[in-house]
Amino acid sequence: MPKIVNHEERRQQLAEAAWRIIRREGMEAVSVRSVASEADMSLGSLRHYFATQSELLAFSMKMVSDRVNARMEAMEFTDHPLQDIERFIRELMPLDEERSVEAEVWLAFSVKAVTDPELQVLKQEVHNAMYDGFNQAIEYLAARGLLKEGLDLRAEAMALHALVDGLVLHHISQPEQVTQKDLSTLVTYHLRGLLQ
Amino acid sequence: MPKIVNHEERRQQLAEAAWRIIRREGMEAVSVRSVASEADMSLGSLRHYFATQSELLAFSMKMVSDRVNARMEAMEFTDHPLQDIERFIRELMPLDEERSVEAEVWLAFSVKAVTDPELQVLKQEVHNAMYDGFNQAIEYLAARGLLKEGLDLRAEAMALHALVDGLVLHHISQPEQVTQKDLSTLVTYHLRGLLQ
Repeated sequence: MPKIVNHEERRQQLAEAAWRIIRREGMEAVSVRSVASEADMSLGSLRHYFATQSELLAFSMKMVSDRVNARMEAMEFTDHPLQDIERFIRELMPLDEERSVEAEVWLAFSVKAVTDPELQVLKQEVHNAMYDGFNQAIEYLAARGLLKEGLDLRAEAMALHALVDGLVLHHISQPEQVTQKDLSTLVTYHLRGLLQ
Repeated sequence: MPKIVNHEERRQQLAEAAWRIIRREGMEAVSVRSVASEADMSLGSLRHYFATQSELLAFSMKMVSDRVNARMEAMEFTDHPLQDIERFIRELMPLDEERSVEAEVWLAFSVKAVTDPELQVLKQEVHNAMYDGFNQAIEYLAARGLLKEGLDLRAEAMALHALVDGLVLHHISQPEQVTQKDLSTLVTYHLRGLLQ
């Protein structure tokens, strides 16, 4: 069914055009008109793929989490829990161009979600899925008997989640003060501090 | 000089009108026109206080950090380093209506700063000032001999800064998953984990 494939590919190209506008000019510059123009398409053609601006935005936001999830699912786990968890966390951090685009665009959508109920639903699902990931990571270290005595596992999972998102926010906003190297180093430093 | 006081007060009222629009409708709804209307003022009168939209935005962003700084400067330090540091951090967190407004508005400006060089300069100054605050807090605990052996002080300052900003981001985006109570509890939990 080549036509359906083409339809989905076109939607992804339009979402990528929205991402480029967000990175270059900010969320307020995104409209069906500016996205059509960025993708070299007429407004009428764009309407064939997205009936409304809100549908275009929701798809563009979801595409960020779909791409991160696809990489997560492709990860192969080894018998080294700490390294596996570091790799899992690195997939979420802006450590190369692809992940930097995702992180910047995701942050812009997250802030927009505060005043947009439809995007907020997706934001919440992704927040919960990420928290589950961090929680499983901490539980995994605990189950292997690697953690220090007396840690509060829920607090550690929430703190690790917040630390990672805070570092991503800092690197996006202040790449010279909080470098890519700092991101990796600080995650490793924090995790090692939890171990016996 | 009542006229000058009045001028400054009017600028603050206009900035507060911009804050209300940001919280209710998002950054993309802010314009000289919408702010004038929100403040019940004509566009011509607004121009008397802010010649350009960019001047209005820069002032509105700076007012957030000025208000936080004013509270910080009014803080009185005691002989209890840990409690002092917890109070310092609480001033930055959305634990009441005033601080929630500041945190939401600041986050929206931070994301806008990624694509706006003028706002980026202010963002960077505030990031550095905040980092200095977290760094002094960690150095203070170290100087009092309260910290565990073998901690990397720079890493701890950067991690604490990222943890606090990550928690603020989570609470603003997901107030039900990351509550005000979680913010306080997790900061206390994290700090206590650094102590001997």
